[in-house]
Amino acid sequence: KITELVAGHFTKNKPLKGKKVVVTAGPTRERIDPVRFLTNFSSGKMGYAMAQAAAELGADTTLISGPVSLAVPSGVKRIQVESAQQMLEAVLGEYDNADLVVKTAAVADYRPAAIAGQKVKKKEGNSVLELERTTDILQQLGQLKSHQILIGFAAETDHVAQYAKAKLERKNADYIIANDVSADQAGFDHDTNAVTVYGRGEFEKSFPVMPKKELALELLTLITDKEFAK
Amino acid sequence: KITELVAGHFTKNKPLKGKKVVVTAGPTRERIDPVRFLTNFSSGKMGYAMAQAAAELGADTTLISGPVSLAVPSGVKRIQVESAQQMLEAVLGEYDNADLVVKTAAVADYRPAAIAGQKVKKKEGNSVLELERTTDILQQLGQLKSHQILIGFAAETDHVAQYAKAKLERKNADYIIANDVSADQAGFDHDTNAVTVYGRGEFEKSFPVMPKKELALELLTLITDKEFAK
Repeated sequence: KITELVAGHFTKNKPLKGKKVVVTAGPTRERIDPVRFLTNFSSGKMGYAMAQAAAELGADTTLISGPVSLAVPSGVKRIQVESAQQMLEAVLGEYDNADLVVKTAAVADYRPAAIAGQKVKKKEGNSVLELERTTDILQQLGQLKSHQILIGFAAETDHVAQYAKAKLERKNADYIIANDVSADQAGFDHDTNAVTVYGRGEFEKSFPVMPKKELALELLTLITDKEFAK
Repeated sequence: KITELVAGHFTKNKPLKGKKVVVTAGPTRERIDPVRFLTNFSSGKMGYAMAQAAAELGADTTLISGPVSLAVPSGVKRIQVESAQQMLEAVLGEYDNADLVVKTAAVADYRPAAIAGQKVKKKEGNSVLELERTTDILQQLGQLKSHQILIGFAAETDHVAQYAKAKLERKNADYIIANDVSADQAGFDHDTNAVTVYGRGEFEKSFPVMPKKELALELLTLITDKEFAK
């Protein structure tokens, strides 16, 4: 298959050798009290596949991961975090030296406005949970961007293309990889995914359903070719 | 060791042969929208250990489990659920024929008052999440109790004994197994646990820190001896 020939060619040639790639993966957990938390569906599989592909392409690869039950890919340095705030701090700590940042993590948009130190006892009747916004990591990285190539993901259930293109502009990202998480064989917890890549200058390319590991290699090969090939 | 001799004796004699044991385990997930949810810390390890022990003691064992990454113990029938409501319905479906019900699951006390069908877009500023109470499964089982022996767990961070004894009365349970989840080597995600059992008639017995599988066998052996031995 052409895919394998291309991937094999690039893997052999290590086109990301000398580049530093930072990948974020998994969900974050936002604690309400010592036993309860808010979180997102995310198995971390796409992010771990992206980190593995980056390492195979020769990059110095750091994976910043929320809580998932996946093994660290060979040749990848992993930093484990729990909350959106911890993920932000870990990414900022790696950002200056990064050449390519791939933000696959499903970071919580909101966290409880206060974290209770003791388990909150339930009461009769309804309740409300006061929420505050977490820092938008992709937006922060977009604002601080100097030489870095910035790749975001967009997991949407509707208006996928429209949201992805708007996100590309608004976040000052270089690519947005969009998937419709309500589609079959795509998104959370599946081993396969189908995505469309949107880039600067109306760039757009769709990939059919394929295993996440293969897709990760194709995506990084595409972006490496466009950004780093001379 | 005496523990092993006792366990070995009971395992060989299958003292729960002919009895039906229902164990609930793991957390529940309460969806906010297709990507976000509320949940509790719970690895499911204590519940899976209780189900395994029940099967080893000869019981016809059903394990009703929230989302965890654990294998089904040998000889155990597993029913997988996601939400508190699904867990309630599954337990009620098994309750009439049950002799012993062990409620280890960390069921959410609250769920979002409404579940959004599409991913909710984040907005500027703070937000509130409207919550409603889920049905208290242990209380429901206590009210419907005829011949069943009902065992609840209490994961507390403070006033452990006081809360456990009050829970025993209030829920019409036969035993409450209490652990202090803020203690070292106990509670969530640990392979060990330290508990105190509270029962009807001021019964109280503490177990030191030990592996959850060993503790499960000791707990079930104790209760079997008190309830079913002639």
